[in-house]
Amino acid sequence: MLHRPKTRDVALMALAILTLPALALAQDEAPKPEFLSILNGNTLWTLIAAILVMFMQAGFAMVETGLTRAKNAGNILMKNMFDFSAGSIAFFLVGYALMFGADVGGFVGFSNFGLSEATPTTPDGLWAYTYWFFQCVFAATAVTIVSGAIAERTKFVAYLILSFVVTALIYPVSGHWIWGGGWLSKLEAPMIDFAGSTVVHSVGGWIALAGAMLVGPRLGKYTPDGVSKAILGHNLPLVALGVFILWFGWFGFNPGSTTTATGNIGLIAVTTNLAGCAAALTAMLTTWMRYGKPDVSMSLNGVLAGLVAITAGCANVSPMGAIIIGLCAGILVVMSVEFVDKVLKIDDPVGAISVHGVCGAFGTLMVGFLAHPDFGGVAGLLYGGGLTQLITQVLGVGSVFIWAFGTGYVVFALLKATVGIRVSEEEELKGLDITEHGSEAYSGFQIFITE
Amino acid sequence: MLHRPKTRDVALMALAILTLPALALAQDEAPKPEFLSILNGNTLWTLIAAILVMFMQAGFAMVETGLTRAKNAGNILMKNMFDFSAGSIAFFLVGYALMFGADVGGFVGFSNFGLSEATPTTPDGLWAYTYWFFQCVFAATAVTIVSGAIAERTKFVAYLILSFVVTALIYPVSGHWIWGGGWLSKLEAPMIDFAGSTVVHSVGGWIALAGAMLVGPRLGKYTPDGVSKAILGHNLPLVALGVFILWFGWFGFNPGSTTTATGNIGLIAVTTNLAGCAAALTAMLTTWMRYGKPDVSMSLNGVLAGLVAITAGCANVSPMGAIIIGLCAGILVVMSVEFVDKVLKIDDPVGAISVHGVCGAFGTLMVGFLAHPDFGGVAGLLYGGGLTQLITQVLGVGSVFIWAFGTGYVVFALLKATVGIRVSEEEELKGLDITEHGSEAYSGFQIFITE
Amino acid sequence: MLHRPKTRDVALMALAILTLPALALAQDEAPKPEFLSILNGNTLWTLIAAILVMFMQAGFAMVETGLTRAKNAGNILMKNMFDFSAGSIAFFLVGYALMFGADVGGFVGFSNFGLSEATPTTPDGLWAYTYWFFQCVFAATAVTIVSGAIAERTKFVAYLILSFVVTALIYPVSGHWIWGGGWLSKLEAPMIDFAGSTVVHSVGGWIALAGAMLVGPRLGKYTPDGVSKAILGHNLPLVALGVFILWFGWFGFNPGSTTTATGNIGLIAVTTNLAGCAAALTAMLTTWMRYGKPDVSMSLNGVLAGLVAITAGCANVSPMGAIIIGLCAGILVVMSVEFVDKVLKIDDPVGAISVHGVCGAFGTLMVGFLAHPDFGGVAGLLYGGGLTQLITQVLGVGSVFIWAFGTGYVVFALLKATVGIRVSEEEELKGLDITEHGSEAYSGFQIFITE
Repeated sequence: MLHRPKTRDVALMALAILTLPALALAQDEAPKPEFLSILNGNTLWTLIAAILVMFMQAGFAMVETGLTRAKNAGNILMKNMFDFSAGSIAFFLVGYALMFGADVGGFVGFSNFGLSEATPTTPDGLWAYTYWFFQCVFAATAVTIVSGAIAERTKFVAYLILSFVVTALIYPVSGHWIWGGGWLSKLEAPMIDFAGSTVVHSVGGWIALAGAMLVGPRLGKYTPDGVSKAILGHNLPLVALGVFILWFGWFGFNPGSTTTATGNIGLIAVTTNLAGCAAALTAMLTTWMRYGKPDVSMSLNGVLAGLVAITAGCANVSPMGAIIIGLCAGILVVMSVEFVDKVLKIDDPVGAISVHGVCGAFGTLMVGFLAHPDFGGVAGLLYGGGLTQLITQVLGVGSVFIWAFGTGYVVFALLKATVGIRVSEEEELKGLDITEHGSEAYSGFQIFITE
Repeated sequence: MLHRPKTRDVALMALAILTLPALALAQDEAPKPEFLSILNGNTLWTLIAAILVMFMQAGFAMVETGLTRAKNAGNILMKNMFDFSAGSIAFFLVGYALMFGADVGGFVGFSNFGLSEATPTTPDGLWAYTYWFFQCVFAATAVTIVSGAIAERTKFVAYLILSFVVTALIYPVSGHWIWGGGWLSKLEAPMIDFAGSTVVHSVGGWIALAGAMLVGPRLGKYTPDGVSKAILGHNLPLVALGVFILWFGWFGFNPGSTTTATGNIGLIAVTTNLAGCAAALTAMLTTWMRYGKPDVSMSLNGVLAGLVAITAGCANVSPMGAIIIGLCAGILVVMSVEFVDKVLKIDDPVGAISVHGVCGAFGTLMVGFLAHPDFGGVAGLLYGGGLTQLITQVLGVGSVFIWAFGTGYVVFALLKATVGIRVSEEEELKGLDITEHGSEAYSGFQIFITE
Repeated sequence: MLHRPKTRDVALMALAILTLPALALAQDEAPKPEFLSILNGNTLWTLIAAILVMFMQAGFAMVETGLTRAKNAGNILMKNMFDFSAGSIAFFLVGYALMFGADVGGFVGFSNFGLSEATPTTPDGLWAYTYWFFQCVFAATAVTIVSGAIAERTKFVAYLILSFVVTALIYPVSGHWIWGGGWLSKLEAPMIDFAGSTVVHSVGGWIALAGAMLVGPRLGKYTPDGVSKAILGHNLPLVALGVFILWFGWFGFNPGSTTTATGNIGLIAVTTNLAGCAAALTAMLTTWMRYGKPDVSMSLNGVLAGLVAITAGCANVSPMGAIIIGLCAGILVVMSVEFVDKVLKIDDPVGAISVHGVCGAFGTLMVGFLAHPDFGGVAGLLYGGGLTQLITQVLGVGSVFIWAFGTGYVVFALLKATVGIRVSEEEELKGLDITEHGSEAYSGFQIFITE
């Protein structure tokens, strides 16, 4: 466990726990310690941060629902609800053990399945539950990224199975490499991915890439001669709400990754916020210059691009460094969305591959350049730190790409060969809400069902 | 008051308070204590948890609005806004005194009306305000549960009066029995309802049952020969958003019920989350097996069922126990909704009676079986604790049912005999937004107004 | 800086920071301090409060979008997103230095541009980032108030420039007078505006007034003979959601303005909540009496009116005082909205001028009457404190009106003379989503585009 409190600390904690029921009912008779222990302070902060990250599920659900068509809204909401539900259970039973269990050859952990080693009767043991919850909501974030890229044409049952596999296996293994004591954390310059640009976002993005490739584009997305057609999302207020919720949750995601109530959590919030703001501005300006008008949904994706990109270095770069990362990410996401759509001809309805995969990789690499010794103790290339850190970052980004895209591809291919991953043409035309769930998202509204 | 700080603590606190205005403006000159006091740590956590619980009002509003028809959306939003407004005032002036005031015969409290005993000039006195706020948002949760079950046909003025009565009288009395030092807390094995499966959710659910019985089903809900017809909700994204908001707020509701910044708050979040996740899965699977497709709104209700059920035992069961409670609650809620709808022929548009009443009672009883000595110091039947705890739980569930359903029935009957509780047929057909409030929720949208 | 920790505190903090990376990876070996420092406790609370305030951006976006027409929804969402983005950057580079930098003649601050004086390597330096973030989200709140009042007819580019100017210049200067050590904080009875009824809300409201006057009413808002016509908002659920989000965020706004984890944060939440609740009730009753039915959107605005009004005195009045302020604000906002609309004939689609400008000023003045010595150490007129405090409050309200309305008028006039502030008639009729952004907010829905 992370913390090994002094004997006095343990005694005070035990006292507090034992007297709790008495305090709640009888009152007045309990002697109590005078000050809040560091351990309980850390628990407080880490739990609150985890709660904020959990709420990001609502953000993803709103963004993905709003950017797709009304006829599939219920289906997407179900996917978002169930990747979190299935993911939490899978990560509890298996995933956490593979990510944070006793290291096996630098590749994977293997112990503490179902939190079997946690002891609820000691402060240390209690901390283990808080820490698990924090890690659990991160795992759920990775998997929910996938649903957007394969929205509007993927079988529900296939997605359900995928959710289990990602949270039980794919995410934990590469996570172990970087956060769980695996090989990328043992290099001379250990990989820096403070809150998971690569561990969480790129992993989600690369699995999404594999999925979008294998499930194929939506009907009518490309003309027979390969020209991409825009398929408009049905609810921009939901998209904006979702982006605000994600932004809000990101202040748990990044500052919370200290998992300790230290003084730099505010600083991490500052870098996080400035990067998101800067990226919003450049994404908007880029669309303005390229398309003649500031595009709403792309600008909103710009915010997310900046937030994803700063996630790796949020505790290691200066505010100015964060602004630079954000400015670049805002431009990059627009270019990348165009590239995926028009050149690769991969249909990603919400831009998840670009926002999470590409900007996650970009942000992780930038740490190698912009890490500032005053902010996180490590110097990147531009601050005289040489190439060592940058090399690790490249190695990490590359190996995680191979792992996540590779295993994601295999899983989607297996699902395709067995339960199937694509609904029928008729189902896709009618919409997945009616055909997969027998419901409609907007009963009573006059809606045009297109393609 | 809960805490009786040491003299030094008091001195430090007083110092902090006195120097606050100076700090905010002048700065630099204030000497200050080195460590955060336990009391201020508890205040911090309890306040944050209360804020999260307050936000559950938005969750209820979205769920109830989304599950009903567009023509009544504004009316439901008003009800949700005003039960919180009226409830806060009523609980401040009267309710809190009846719930936590000096005990009168184990049945009711009676002192501290309008927080008259609180002293803002001492740390203890300040704590009283934080604690009141936490209890206030709980009271408001109980009352808002009712609005969903009687939605789309109840008079606004009747609901407004009901909100006052529930928060001023019905909720505080049974709450006093369990949390305020009343008879259920004085039994040999005091009743365990850590965060209010019974105190809050069942009370709301049973009042809702009384209301739905007396106000009668919506027009067209049952055919003349008694066959139930589905009346679809108009906005599934709002329902999903509401469920996510409630889930988010539940991490204040359950872990916050420690009202102290202890080490087990993370553990409580874990049991809470696992139960909600497990219930989501079984609710979905149950609908899949029974209706051939995984139902969206019932699956979302499954999450709530699991969260309601774990609320009583969240600090007393193991994570595995929580999963078991969740798995059962997810099945139970589907069965119960069918039973209420098809057998009892009571029209509950959002399933509030089943989710909050039935699953609240179920979860409270399960503590008698699954309480684990390592987790909360009490052993249930399955851990060798015998029948004592279970008997108390049965007693508590039963007596609270009698109280809440009984008084709820009386109040609704009195309202029916006086101001009336049901709008006219014409008003119901046109929709309550136009007839009760002179507005429409979705101006400009083409909407089919049915039945 | 606000805090000057003891040497031991500094040493412990430095230790914690230095050992952080080691803790995250290697574990077990770090010695650690036993208790959470006051400074870290303050950082924790202030950061969490700032995060809640940041989320108010989503609330404003939802309220403003819901109260206007569907054809302009995307445009309003963009404005809300970009005033926060542009505002954060501007406040980082310039605004904060003018508000909290070294005082120049009591009028403005001037140092610490781009947080150049902050040192991330010391606890004090780290605190500066947290404090900045808290102030930044407040600045962004002020500017976002403006967008609602000038919605549905203002050029996007003009609004973007305005956002920069407000957060870089207008807001910081009057903020400096009251919170930054300027002249209003140096009077015999320093102005009391604890969380910004005047500093934030009135400033936003008065700039909104200037903007709404100069940009003129929407097409069709007034008949040729000057009769006001209602233009209905398109989405009441979004409005209610937005109000709940704002209410939620306000518990960061007001209690967080301690910027210290003191014992009175719960008390401040109580006064805040009671005022909002009381205002909701009187706003509803006022519309009921005047229009025959309880109006939904006006009642929702009533909540905001109460919250705005209590913001100045939330730490200085008793709960009863808070209820009184709320009761009055709920009536006042209805009257003021009517007055602005029907007498002044200024078109404010969301009522921002009345809610934020008028009720902000009202609440600030009420501190002069209702400040209670037991709650904040200052006695208002009704508690025997004489006229001194009231005179300062009047002076503050008046001078801030002159500053904010005056500079706001100049900026809008300059924008009108240069880039233009109003879209063409044709653009306004078609809607700003299509004409300014080439998108539509509700693709697939059948919507009537009116006027």
